[in-house]
Amino acid sequence: MSQVQELLSRELKVLLRTRECEERKLYIRICIELHMVAGPVHKKDMVIRLTDDMDPFFLYNLVVSEEDFQSMKIQQGLLIDFSAFPQKFIDLLCQCIQEENKAAPRFLLQLSSNSALGSSVAQLDVIETNPFKHLTHLSLRLLPANDLEIKNYLAACLKYIKDEKNVLQQTLNKTVEDLNQKLLSTQQ
Amino acid sequence: MSQVQELLSRELKVLLRTRECEERKLYIRICIELHMVAGPVHKKDMVIRLTDDMDPFFLYNLVVSEEDFQSMKIQQGLLIDFSAFPQKFIDLLCQCIQEENKAAPRFLLQLSSNSALGSSVAQLDVIETNPFKHLTHLSLRLLPANDLEIKNYLAACLKYIKDEKNVLQQTLNKTVEDLNQKLLSTQQ
Repeated sequence: MSQVQELLSRELKVLLRTRECEERKLYIRICIELHMVAGPVHKKDMVIRLTDDMDPFFLYNLVVSEEDFQSMKIQQGLLIDFSAFPQKFIDLLCQCIQEENKAAPRFLLQLSSNSALGSSVAQLDVIETNPFKHLTHLSLRLLPANDLEIKNYLAACLKYIKDEKNVLQQTLNKTVEDLNQKLLSTQQ
Repeated sequence: MSQVQELLSRELKVLLRTRECEERKLYIRICIELHMVAGPVHKKDMVIRLTDDMDPFFLYNLVVSEEDFQSMKIQQGLLIDFSAFPQKFIDLLCQCIQEENKAAPRFLLQLSSNSALGSSVAQLDVIETNPFKHLTHLSLRLLPANDLEIKNYLAACLKYIKDEKNVLQQTLNKTVEDLNQKLLSTQQ
């Protein structure tokens, strides 16, 4: 039995740095989910997914288990527990969102990749820039998805957008009907 | 330089036969395309694709080159040329469409697969049933697509349905605007 809880799914402005091209800003969708597996041992994973609404093949994943978090905590000198981590990450993202339209944002998201082809690890950093220096608050390493993962992701997107389209079609039908009704009763 | 010409894309009722389960009828989308590659040697391939609008992972492909057609012609005793083959296949499908809601169709499409998991070759037959016997007019062997092909197919579907959804949204906006305008001018 696996349960998925979505904590965040929204587009954020990201500074993209690759070896091949100059820095550029683009919008990336960041999705944060908690995957809970019930069983003899209760297991909770935090899943971070980067996608691009304009590019169906752009998909990076990071699964952080409690154990992964412990080593991340030591490496990056974090002071919080695993249970507090998702909300802390969301708070950092919100600080980036607040600053994303400023010419010199104090908080920004930076995505670094060594390959423009998307075939290698990407690093997502939350960086604060103060008058003195750049401070990296958090650094996450994400893996590009393989064909199987992209296939599953696109199937989910397709289902979602088909449902949205059906709702829209129903709204259109209902609206035309209602307004024609109104028009008819007004003309009489 | 490659050019794609779509000749047909529609859902057809198919009789599904698998080793694991009983016969059942379902709708399968059949798409026929001509892929033309210009270059030192002009090359034309006929591409046949089976998909299921309800199942994003159902995808079978067959690419028929001029050479493939020559061996198919000998094996199946066909009397037409490669250039006439696409239209002849479409004609056969039309005969199936005309009969598809009949209890005892004279022409029917049969899809046979050895595995319900879709991991093996599928055979698509156009079968005529007369009082005396079953006659197979055409027999095509299609391969299940791999993850890369499904990924590309789903990305194309997603783009198509996004465009459709946008058109629908514009229609809704325009309709509401027009009818409100009419309503307003009628009330005055």
